Amino acid sequence: MSPIRNISIYFNEIPSDYPIPGQTLITKEETIDIDTVELNGSCLLKTLALSIDPYLRLQMRETHIKSYFPAYEVGEVIYGLGIAVVVRSEREGFKAGDKVYGLLRHQEYHVAMPDSLTPLQVLPPGLPISNAAMLGVGGLAGGSGYMGYKEYAKAKKGQTIFVSTAAGAVGSVVVQLAKRDGLRVIGSAGSEEKVAYMKEIGVDVAFNYKTTDTNAVLAKEGPIDIYWENVGGATLDAALANMQVHGTIIVCGVMSSYNGVEYAHKNLSSIFAKSLHIHGFLYTDLAPKYTEEFYRDFVPLVATGAIKHNEEITRGLDKVGEAMARLQKGENTGKVVVWVADE
Amino acid sequence: MSPIRNISIYFNEIPSDYPIPGQTLITKEETIDIDTVELNGSCLLKTLALSIDPYLRLQMRETHIKSYFPAYEVGEVIYGLGIAVVVRSEREGFKAGDKVYGLLRHQEYHVAMPDSLTPLQVLPPGLPISNAAMLGVGGLAGGSGYMGYKEYAKAKKGQTIFVSTAAGAVGSVVVQLAKRDGLRVIGSAGSEEKVAYMKEIGVDVAFNYKTTDTNAVLAKEGPIDIYWENVGGATLDAALANMQVHGTIIVCGVMSSYNGVEYAHKNLSSIFAKSLHIHGFLYTDLAPKYTEEFYRDFVPLVATGAIKHNEEITRGLDKVGEAMARLQKGENTGKVVVWVADE
Repeated sequence: MSPIRNISIYFNEIPSDYPIPGQTLITKEETIDIDTVELNGSCLLKTLALSIDPYLRLQMRETHIKSYFPAYEVGEVIYGLGIAVVVRSEREGFKAGDKVYGLLRHQEYHVAMPDSLTPLQVLPPGLPISNAAMLGVGGLAGGSGYMGYKEYAKAKKGQTIFVSTAAGAVGSVVVQLAKRDGLRVIGSAGSEEKVAYMKEIGVDVAFNYKTTDTNAVLAKEGPIDIYWENVGGATLDAALANMQVHGTIIVCGVMSSYNGVEYAHKNLSSIFAKSLHIHGFLYTDLAPKYTEEFYRDFVPLVATGAIKHNEEITRGLDKVGEAMARLQKGENTGKVVVWVADE
Repeated sequence: MSPIRNISIYFNEIPSDYPIPGQTLITKEETIDIDTVELNGSCLLKTLALSIDPYLRLQMRETHIKSYFPAYEVGEVIYGLGIAVVVRSEREGFKAGDKVYGLLRHQEYHVAMPDSLTPLQVLPPGLPISNAAMLGVGGLAGGSGYMGYKEYAKAKKGQTIFVSTAAGAVGSVVVQLAKRDGLRVIGSAGSEEKVAYMKEIGVDVAFNYKTTDTNAVLAKEGPIDIYWENVGGATLDAALANMQVHGTIIVCGVMSSYNGVEYAHKNLSSIFAKSLHIHGFLYTDLAPKYTEEFYRDFVPLVATGAIKHNEEITRGLDKVGEAMARLQKGENTGKVVVWVADE
């Protein structure tokens, strides 16, 4: 067969704050001969769906800045978690037609990357939920919510949890787990639409932090036994001011700091004055302990509809740049997935 | 007997940054008749020595700002931990001549305050260490270092600990405990004199953060398994950047934030990216669990000289304001004690 189109997303420029569509990432229309491309012991993948996650912004940095996540190189095709189908394979355990999950280059077709913290894995046939859901509530986002909550919340019925970005892909899972444990849930998000969604999934006190003073809400509805931290900045400061003595803060992300926005916290002294415990975690950190239980106990709840979820699916690989920007600005509703191709 | 002099220290004005001697606190020369003053079931105390601690700055705030520490009222005599001798008593368990430890008003003589988190207690006769040492290495400071380290460090031989304010009353205790456990100790402080003292007590890498870049030192000498946090601000940011994955931060104080100095942290994302655990604590929180062990196992090490300590003793109650300012600015060397009277 002759070469076919292969749209690829390149990292073009380090953003100073929010990523700019068409500038931070650029789309190139390249070609690939899927019959003859060298595999070198690996496999050729056709990308089906890509997960657009907040942490990807942390890879768009100067390469000399150390972090747990490697930096994208300018001029390199970016990569992130996604689902693909194997087109050809020289790799043991992977055969043409297998659906796989792992770190994928943002290309329509590519030879699989070397394995990393998230090795490429073959998904079982007949997933109980859609590809997009497997990338959200059944993947990194849902898994982060499930595993972080299980490991660190140590929740007791009747306690109060405050979840930031409670309408988001991770937050909405934490909200629903907390409700199942009999907790009172305070949730914040940045639009009236998200407030409505928070109420739909059971948040007891749902508010729009852009129009309501977070500190006032927490002062009235707190103290907070558990704070699920996704944003940092002023929200963290308000939470610190309203934590219960011996409270727990679970740090899943500090999204407000990813895009060059600086904030000077005033209430860090609450950490010792209230004897708080703060636990940060990465999905990859807890996955070895919880993956089996997550797929066994939690994903079926998604399949039956007992756990609600929400996706914002954008079609076309060339939409990655826009999707990233929408997510970083909080303009999305639900888990952001770029749908690249049908199976 | 006719009334005698009773110097008293009043809270005069809420400071906007560092407390100003003669303005934040003012000295009044009052009188008291120690033979006739009403005790109302309490006891009359003659103050011997007062502990000047960093946290006292947190009490010098607007009264509407909630905190675990009550705010001083403007126009009120301030109070803090100290040692006194009982002059007269109507209270069971306290008799004239007993030496007591607890929250004392900053007055030469006063009727004991109602009991609080730190109830007044009678000290056993024949203390193994001096009154001043009992207020420092054998009191709140040493106890905070000992208890916080024992509860949260979970140190393993060969690990690296970074101690901020390592020449201070708390930090110097943590340094020496860590050395006894076979740790490699990095210590920071703000003068060459303090660097010399850090070396004297066993700090392996001692540096002056005012003349050396903390981040550069930690990048070279880290990663840090355990960070003992006394200061916050840029030091915390540098520590976050150089923590080991799964590292522990023990928050004893964030002194840089007490005096109106604001700092926007850039590295809070390390909390989740490195799966860090942060534990804040108060002495009063851990004291029920550790007090017996502290006096049994640790204070004797002070008495024999196996644990070194350093005090800056200022004579005269009217020196409290200056002593507070020196401490907040880090101009002191060693535990700050105001010596009010001999026994």
